[in-house]
Amino acid sequence: MKIETLEQIVNGITPLDKSLGDKIQSRLDNLTKPKGSLGRLEELALKYMLIKTDPNPKIPNKSVFVFAADHGVTEEGVSAFPKEVTFQMVANFLAQGAGINVLARHVGADVKVIDIGVDADLSHLKGLIHKKVLRGTRNMLKGPAMDREDAIRAIWVGAEVAKNAIDAGVDILCTGEMGIGNTTAASAITAVICNKTPKEVTGRGTGIDDEALKRKISVIEKAIKVNSPDPTDPIDVLSKVGGLEIAGICGLILMSSYLKTPVVIDGFISTAGALVAYELNPLVKEYMFAGHVSVEQGHKIQLSHMGLRPILDLDLRLGEGTGAVLATNIIDAGLKIYLEMATFDDAKVSPGENQYGSPK
Amino acid sequence: MKIETLEQIVNGITPLDKSLGDKIQSRLDNLTKPKGSLGRLEELALKYMLIKTDPNPKIPNKSVFVFAADHGVTEEGVSAFPKEVTFQMVANFLAQGAGINVLARHVGADVKVIDIGVDADLSHLKGLIHKKVLRGTRNMLKGPAMDREDAIRAIWVGAEVAKNAIDAGVDILCTGEMGIGNTTAASAITAVICNKTPKEVTGRGTGIDDEALKRKISVIEKAIKVNSPDPTDPIDVLSKVGGLEIAGICGLILMSSYLKTPVVIDGFISTAGALVAYELNPLVKEYMFAGHVSVEQGHKIQLSHMGLRPILDLDLRLGEGTGAVLATNIIDAGLKIYLEMATFDDAKVSPGENQYGSPK
Repeated sequence: MKIETLEQIVNGITPLDKSLGDKIQSRLDNLTKPKGSLGRLEELALKYMLIKTDPNPKIPNKSVFVFAADHGVTEEGVSAFPKEVTFQMVANFLAQGAGINVLARHVGADVKVIDIGVDADLSHLKGLIHKKVLRGTRNMLKGPAMDREDAIRAIWVGAEVAKNAIDAGVDILCTGEMGIGNTTAASAITAVICNKTPKEVTGRGTGIDDEALKRKISVIEKAIKVNSPDPTDPIDVLSKVGGLEIAGICGLILMSSYLKTPVVIDGFISTAGALVAYELNPLVKEYMFAGHVSVEQGHKIQLSHMGLRPILDLDLRLGEGTGAVLATNIIDAGLKIYLEMATFDDAKVSPGENQYGSPK
Repeated sequence: MKIETLEQIVNGITPLDKSLGDKIQSRLDNLTKPKGSLGRLEELALKYMLIKTDPNPKIPNKSVFVFAADHGVTEEGVSAFPKEVTFQMVANFLAQGAGINVLARHVGADVKVIDIGVDADLSHLKGLIHKKVLRGTRNMLKGPAMDREDAIRAIWVGAEVAKNAIDAGVDILCTGEMGIGNTTAASAITAVICNKTPKEVTGRGTGIDDEALKRKISVIEKAIKVNSPDPTDPIDVLSKVGGLEIAGICGLILMSSYLKTPVVIDGFISTAGALVAYELNPLVKEYMFAGHVSVEQGHKIQLSHMGLRPILDLDLRLGEGTGAVLATNIIDAGLKIYLEMATFDDAKVSPGENQYGSPK
């Protein structure tokens, strides 16, 4: 298959094929438990199998893709951490010492780190996927964060990363990111796309105090005013007030949906990328799982905009893909229920009367 | 150590030793992430280590204890399943085919099944822990479900099971149960202890329809009227409107707390056992994790009565310990974060200014 343009991917995403739904549901209903009593475990397993159009799946090969990029807007003092932390954390990911490394090992996922826009020369780093589009975005307070062409190039990077992984046998992709300043970009995107005020969608990110939060909100308000992003043109929004890692995540979600491969989104920044993808084609929703709901207040607004219900709610606000990888473990649990549990017939257990009618 | 009476256990439970709190918190705060950004993963790890008074724990050995018992009240048509399903499911547990077997394997937990009151002769079954106190309870509509002495014997069974497991090296215990009719008993206990009407705390259990739900509520109302359980005497409540498996769970929680070993409670029925333990000594709360919040409407009321926040919310309503074992996987994730993540010093990452003051 040859894919040549972004339009080809966006327009090539088709609705979920639900033809196996009855067959899968019927097995779920014949397992030795009251109908539906494993709730979301059953729902997640069903969605996974429908996406893969496979009623006899194996436990998925998992990878998390950590897109790293810098943000010119950090000049405005919107983060509690200095910009250098972006590349320092890239080194930490490669040395297996970060939160995402620990949690990915816990669930059996590979960690892939992509330099899509770090403002440092990382060409010497081994194990890093080198796909730098720009050395960080520009300060969105002074004009567009990036040119439209660069946003499209960054989306394309994410799409290619997804295609390579799927071709290599990855069954489920998790989104992750690292970029000091990126909650500011995510808040700006969310305000514009979800038609909310910056105040409604802006939180403390890595942990800023009240004064810095006020400044962050004001920076986002001004950036939106200066750039006038067009809410009906998601790539315009992404390029004017977004970020390169957010674009990469958007591309990864588009390609996964195009190739009918499940993708688990992480927190607020990942979900900003998902929002852009969703605005390009809402069918991506059928291929996405929302890994968790974060503490960042705008995250609930993003998820409700797309009608996605999170799997976990653990007060996480780290990003990197941490909530997404943890959630894959719950999807695995659902698949194992489907694959390994005995049926009423196997176990000679009397089915409940609710299977046939009301109790007398 | 010799433990001779229930009073000795109940009165011997002491408050959580928090002396290691600062040391553990300081390591958590020096890991390469914004302070507190792994939310409940950090909180769960801290609680686990405080309970074990061990700042360098290993990943816990886990067991789930499935107490099985029958309920005389099933005569009243309160369940969608026939009573025989209790012993049929015991056989299914031993054959490794039930939901709890699948999820316990998923998280690496052992499954122990205890016949504490099944109304069938199961003496031939291998692998079952034989501790039958009675062949099921009596119909609580016609008088007390069991004598006070039998309730105490059943609590004692749970306590002994816990002590044996802890002596054998189990680090964390999960509660589970099987007993057709046991949401009726759990609802009755919850109504009395939490001072709610039966309607407020009674749900559909295995999946009864509207008509059966009305009947179930009315059975509980009448059982409470007939027996007048004393809300200030938890064992009176347990014996008059409870169940043998609920008593076993209560005993397991009391002994785990006494021996300073973490216990993860499961859904509505397990939490009814936890409520009885809590009323005997509220300090048990410091040794318990609430694994999940179930669909059964009374579960939220029970958890809020004890001030426990659930780890998972997956619309489960199967019981058996399924939510509890899944939650241990999240506790493990928290412990691995603590044990395996790099510190700022290790990774040469600049700490955020929020560690020292406000950003400039």
